Amino acid sequence: MDKSILKPHERIDQLSSQGIKIIQSSEVFAFSLDAVLLADFVRPNHRQRLQTIDICAGNGAIGLFLNRKLGGQFTEVELQPRLADMARRSISLNNLTERYRVINADVKNIYDYVHKDAYDIVTCNPPYFKSLPTSKKNPHRYLAIARHELTIDLPTVAEKMSGLLKMNGKGYLVHRPDRLTEILQVLNEHRLMVKRICFVYPKPGKAANMVLIETIKDGRPGGTIIEPPLVVGDQEGNYTSQVEAMLHAN
Amino acid sequence: MDKSILKPHERIDQLSSQGIKIIQSSEVFAFSLDAVLLADFVRPNHRQRLQTIDICAGNGAIGLFLNRKLGGQFTEVELQPRLADMARRSISLNNLTERYRVINADVKNIYDYVHKDAYDIVTCNPPYFKSLPTSKKNPHRYLAIARHELTIDLPTVAEKMSGLLKMNGKGYLVHRPDRLTEILQVLNEHRLMVKRICFVYPKPGKAANMVLIETIKDGRPGGTIIEPPLVVGDQEGNYTSQVEAMLHAN
Repeated sequence: MDKSILKPHERIDQLSSQGIKIIQSSEVFAFSLDAVLLADFVRPNHRQRLQTIDICAGNGAIGLFLNRKLGGQFTEVELQPRLADMARRSISLNNLTERYRVINADVKNIYDYVHKDAYDIVTCNPPYFKSLPTSKKNPHRYLAIARHELTIDLPTVAEKMSGLLKMNGKGYLVHRPDRLTEILQVLNEHRLMVKRICFVYPKPGKAANMVLIETIKDGRPGGTIIEPPLVVGDQEGNYTSQVEAMLHAN
Repeated sequence: MDKSILKPHERIDQLSSQGIKIIQSSEVFAFSLDAVLLADFVRPNHRQRLQTIDICAGNGAIGLFLNRKLGGQFTEVELQPRLADMARRSISLNNLTERYRVINADVKNIYDYVHKDAYDIVTCNPPYFKSLPTSKKNPHRYLAIARHELTIDLPTVAEKMSGLLKMNGKGYLVHRPDRLTEILQVLNEHRLMVKRICFVYPKPGKAANMVLIETIKDGRPGGTIIEPPLVVGDQEGNYTSQVEAMLHAN
């Protein structure tokens, strides 16, 4: 029955720890561990009236992964029609249409669709790589847009995250630590005070390759907490028990 | 024989891993693990003509800990006469007077004593805490000046670090991660590009309580490396083997 909602070259992956199935496509978009880690980093909040919005949503993985951890309503914003369509079908697949909606739009025009200063939580797994002329872009346009700052860049992400949040709302970002100074500066410029950071290391003894950031709109500066390091794999390349627990149901 | 150079309430501590003895005083100033960790974080460079300066030097611990790792000449700058005197006597105690000198001066006036743009390496373990009216200062003035931004603050540290460095020289800082956004921003504003960061955790599962930062003056922005986490103690409160190796000779 599940299969009937798939288009060519699509598959269904599971995040059994959250009871979620996701429509994926390696040609177009497939969520990666980044989405799992960001969802895990978000603090739980079961308020019934909570409003959460995921920008640069891709196939909607982060929003769906948060279905048990956050109460209330979810909005997923995705520019690319084919990805927005995958996100909508994944919502149906998980019987979550009453709590989730997908907006197929450019985040830059988001206020044509939703109110400013209206969200308790904004999440974003943006394109990581600067779109420099020399940078080698993915020949698949879908993937290139998801990975490179072709249609949105970090300052725009921060501006929209801040604009969408209520005062004291929480903005969550996953990004690359090699841009850390720029990331913290841009967030700060957009009234997003960095409250909590977790660096993610691929294995013991390696430099971090991901950073998870929690901000509070108009929060007090300083007081940043650097969480214990999150190590993804062991020396043999197996997931650590911490990451296994994020992926699989007990 | 060593004892003859001690003043009342002073003692001699050792950093046997570096073959160094240091004159300490718990009333006035005693180096802490921060100094050991910062010295360990500095990359070795055995050039004979290397010029290194340690600002906010206290009793001169960081400079002395670097005696084997760095070639060339060391300058230690310390505001408080009693600490500068301890630093001078520690240099004698280690027979390092040919490579080390101490300047008893306010870092703010450092160009009255040394040239700008003249150093390959600048190190600094500055006061960590903002000198707010509400902050509880150490009743011992010596220690208060070392811990609180009473006589120097972070922007001044960054300004002098940058001013003292040659182009492409390396500035090393140890600080508190709760001020991370501000630290990275201030360094960036003073042409100090953050190249390498190591977060220090007191024990597994705890938030970081120290951050070690390597900057390059006029370096290219971005490309920051987040080093593997450094964990100081185990769950029982014993030093980890990594820290033991920094402290004790094999």
